[in-house]
Amino acid sequence: MSEGRLIGVGIGPGDPELLTVKAVRVLQAAPVVAFFAKAGRRGNARKIVDPWLTSTTEIHFADPAYRAALVAFYEESAERIARHLRDGRDVALLSEGDPLFYGSFMHLFMRLKSRFATSIVPGVTGMCGAWGAAGMPMAWGDDVLVVAPGALPLADLVERLGRADGAVIMKIGRHLAKVREALRICDMLSRAIYVERATMENEIILPLVEKRDDSAPYFSMVLVPGEGRRP
Amino acid sequence: MSEGRLIGVGIGPGDPELLTVKAVRVLQAAPVVAFFAKAGRRGNARKIVDPWLTSTTEIHFADPAYRAALVAFYEESAERIARHLRDGRDVALLSEGDPLFYGSFMHLFMRLKSRFATSIVPGVTGMCGAWGAAGMPMAWGDDVLVVAPGALPLADLVERLGRADGAVIMKIGRHLAKVREALRICDMLSRAIYVERATMENEIILPLVEKRDDSAPYFSMVLVPGEGRRP
Repeated sequence: MSEGRLIGVGIGPGDPELLTVKAVRVLQAAPVVAFFAKAGRRGNARKIVDPWLTSTTEIHFADPAYRAALVAFYEESAERIARHLRDGRDVALLSEGDPLFYGSFMHLFMRLKSRFATSIVPGVTGMCGAWGAAGMPMAWGDDVLVVAPGALPLADLVERLGRADGAVIMKIGRHLAKVREALRICDMLSRAIYVERATMENEIILPLVEKRDDSAPYFSMVLVPGEGRRP
Repeated sequence: MSEGRLIGVGIGPGDPELLTVKAVRVLQAAPVVAFFAKAGRRGNARKIVDPWLTSTTEIHFADPAYRAALVAFYEESAERIARHLRDGRDVALLSEGDPLFYGSFMHLFMRLKSRFATSIVPGVTGMCGAWGAAGMPMAWGDDVLVVAPGALPLADLVERLGRADGAVIMKIGRHLAKVREALRICDMLSRAIYVERATMENEIILPLVEKRDDSAPYFSMVLVPGEGRRP
């Protein structure tokens, strides 16, 4: 009996129609579908693929609340997947956006890729979903695009954004006031767009200067469009 | 009679199965499909969507050979599309990768968006296709990812890459020797991966240090994975 394959499946930014044709095919063929979700919740990833799944075995990994527990959590999650793979069952592991771009998938992939066959189904990233929903061209000609997490310290954000033509600041959460300040220093604030839940219900898109408060979920982002060469 | 809508449709990195479900639906419903291609050729974009198209009206824009002709070319292309829109026909304009990320689509979008209804179907970018095919996690935790075109001067490349944790150098073409030098200076050369035609037939993926020559097509890229926080 041959072993199963671990398949990292990018499921896109949120709209179930933004899965690729390949992602839908792979999910519908996989005997086991695995995903991360907060404890006690079904989770956003599982919800996004709901229209495409019929009956499969599901493995739900409940993210631990504390960073200190992450290593043990990923080890245990990897072993639960390994058991299915050893028994010959392919496992499709859901990844919001693209699997290899800031995804939890990567932590299981690194633990399993030397032991089992793996493949990746790339997905539409959250940032592509966001600038598409905003109808905002992001990078032109020779523009340099910088993607930076909002958690960086102010000085570091300013240094990175100072060398950018266009920018995406991801994972805003409690960092919005600092992100505004970095953009102001880099003279990018006036063209920055705030985006929350792009391509999903209750999508929010507005110029950052029009956003009145500094409250933002973890999965929100700020986009600064490039302005490069435009024939 | 109402006017048509211009729809920018991202068709992904090359594998026809990497179109989104939404892109396929939109293409199959659009009475007019428009795309760019070199003069005398059918073009890569048209080829990628071939499995999904039945009978539609097609508009083929032959890219001019010289930059000086680009403005007139885009003006004329926009007017050809505008004629269909005024007559009430939706036009789906194909865009390799994602429509708003270094795409020719944007030049027509900017000329038409104030006059007609528009929408965007985001796509899997060429770079996601490339790192997925390479099986290479690109950005972790607080990594900053820099996307830079290979055409930048050496000093500029070095300055931008010097502030990057992970990097994508796009549109390599005749710039490969310079890109190697920039990566060497930034101490990124040993982990750089060269990728050509990812997700398509004749895909090439190899460590850049193992690539013996400096010949590369325009649509090749170099990936430098981030190495950030990994629990």
